[in-house]
Amino acid sequence: MSSADTFSIRYEFIAETVSDAEQTASDVALEQTVELPFGAVAPEFQQFIGTPSECSQESDARWSCTIEYKTDVAGNDILQFLNVMFGNVSIKPGVKITDFNPGALAPLFPGPQFGIDGIRKLAGATGRPLSCTALKPVGASQEQLAEIAGDCAIGGIDIIKDDHGLANQSMAPFEDRVKACVAAIRKSDKETGRNTLYFPNITTRIENLLSQAKLARSLGADGLLISPQITGLSALASLAESGINLPIMAHPAFSGSYTINADSGISADIYFGKLWRALGADAVIYPNTGGRFSYSLDECLDINDACRSEFGTFRPIFPTPGGGIDRESVGEWKTKYGNDTIFLIGGSLYMHPDGMKTAVQEFQNSVIEG
Amino acid sequence: MSSADTFSIRYEFIAETVSDAEQTASDVALEQTVELPFGAVAPEFQQFIGTPSECSQESDARWSCTIEYKTDVAGNDILQFLNVMFGNVSIKPGVKITDFNPGALAPLFPGPQFGIDGIRKLAGATGRPLSCTALKPVGASQEQLAEIAGDCAIGGIDIIKDDHGLANQSMAPFEDRVKACVAAIRKSDKETGRNTLYFPNITTRIENLLSQAKLARSLGADGLLISPQITGLSALASLAESGINLPIMAHPAFSGSYTINADSGISADIYFGKLWRALGADAVIYPNTGGRFSYSLDECLDINDACRSEFGTFRPIFPTPGGGIDRESVGEWKTKYGNDTIFLIGGSLYMHPDGMKTAVQEFQNSVIEG
Repeated sequence: MSSADTFSIRYEFIAETVSDAEQTASDVALEQTVELPFGAVAPEFQQFIGTPSECSQESDARWSCTIEYKTDVAGNDILQFLNVMFGNVSIKPGVKITDFNPGALAPLFPGPQFGIDGIRKLAGATGRPLSCTALKPVGASQEQLAEIAGDCAIGGIDIIKDDHGLANQSMAPFEDRVKACVAAIRKSDKETGRNTLYFPNITTRIENLLSQAKLARSLGADGLLISPQITGLSALASLAESGINLPIMAHPAFSGSYTINADSGISADIYFGKLWRALGADAVIYPNTGGRFSYSLDECLDINDACRSEFGTFRPIFPTPGGGIDRESVGEWKTKYGNDTIFLIGGSLYMHPDGMKTAVQEFQNSVIEG
Repeated sequence: MSSADTFSIRYEFIAETVSDAEQTASDVALEQTVELPFGAVAPEFQQFIGTPSECSQESDARWSCTIEYKTDVAGNDILQFLNVMFGNVSIKPGVKITDFNPGALAPLFPGPQFGIDGIRKLAGATGRPLSCTALKPVGASQEQLAEIAGDCAIGGIDIIKDDHGLANQSMAPFEDRVKACVAAIRKSDKETGRNTLYFPNITTRIENLLSQAKLARSLGADGLLISPQITGLSALASLAESGINLPIMAHPAFSGSYTINADSGISADIYFGKLWRALGADAVIYPNTGGRFSYSLDECLDINDACRSEFGTFRPIFPTPGGGIDRESVGEWKTKYGNDTIFLIGGSLYMHPDGMKTAVQEFQNSVIEG
């Protein structure tokens, strides 16, 4: 089998000895393709079974193996790629995906249309991290959210996104909200001479996703926020392929079940930094270490690396840590995470005694100089 | 808050004492709605925060709490319901959903259009379990798969489904496969006087899902197979709402990350038997205990119960255990699981020394009489 017609997935799984590991690797290779015991596979179909590499030991009871699959098995379909990658083995205890290479199927994936360079160009910001905050809370009217947006823009924030919980609720319907927020931000931009980017949340059933994205663009949005694990992962690709020509920021809602378990699911760096990137995200939000979520500092650094490292022809994308980031700490996070980062600040802005504008100004100063 | 305008989610989480538990419940109620610390929520928006019930202790370190949410927070959107249900807390360590009640949002969910009674009517089978097998392997041509389908129909199987790994690969393209399999099955039905049901796999990007479903119907398919966690969960609802008028069998590919971890994700019974049922599945396949997957017998019995128990206006649906079920064991599984079950048999049919027809005949006899 030549790599010209294959793709590969790296799995980590439970095994005690090298022969246990080889057995499990063979089981996975069967499960994800012909889904039959080897003895029931006629010789002519054996070519479609995945081909495991040598197994390597990761720890006392964990081994790894890369399985190479023929592209024919996934056909021409991103969803079938996902199925071969992790369909049935997602239900086996202790199996985790720790890497993948789309190989000859790379052209199935649109990849990021903007990436780090594209977003920097839109924001007019080089040589420093970018800042981002979320409009909240659900329940606020479009006027109230627009006022916050205007204040954040005056304060100098680079990107304003909707909270991922803002959809099309009656308190601030999508179209009204986007209109009001764009107007408020443009008014502030006139004062400051800056170009603040606004990313409304377009997460909706995919039947409506592209029309909602087009509506957002026609109303003046600068980018789009989507929660791919809620829409279905291929919605991200649909958006990236659509020619909408706006950067996409992806939110991790509903994705924790894949990414927080040490011994199952998909490594967070691979899931956010490779899978979502291949599918078309230009920036991926993830819960920062030390906040109210699950990841260790090492996992966060791995996510950052995966977002920025060479990966086929896919542009590097912005890791966007959120949680536990405020004016005081952002300097330290800059040192740890580097300039090619979007720092997402949330609750602390909303609690500043001197109000949103001042809070954002102080944060932005720290992002630029801190 | 009256239950007329709420829905509720039951969470289990890590806590040592009742006050720890109350704190975590309050944190979840904030996280899933306003996503701000309580101190940053202006009084007018506090009505949108979820309302936790009393917490109850489940084990030494696990507590449970039901949080009631205003329907306004989810608006009119199944995806936003999913986001409020589990969006951000999916990423918190140790949080698991153990039940939910769509409450006033029940009308958002199409529910099963056929359910147990509807599928029984199509199959012409009452007072006994149904049998099902999968056409395999990927790599086989449509002619080869059709031959297997014809043999299974002669043998008397109730439902023939595509393997979930059959999509639109060049070896057996969707349209050619469905045509060939329908023809072979109808030919066998003429011989036997039976009405074998054929459920092709229509899992594809949702832009094409409905047209693929319509194509399947126009070619004579009797039902549809879909992997909702691969398409995105709302695709299931889109299909059920579409008026396609075919029963939907849902496959668990890619869903294990939600359902196999004891302390996170979503309880398997709730995920398969309530969430997928509300979204429109008429039968849900799950990996049977004792096979090559994760669930205990108790979990399987819980899934069965959830599929069949009263749940608002949603019809009871068929649990469809697969894995470890063969001619010898199916009698025992009938005793354990009852008549309102579809028994999915796989590899053992393909390994019978006397061929597929005989294998299916023996299995079907055991399903009916065993």
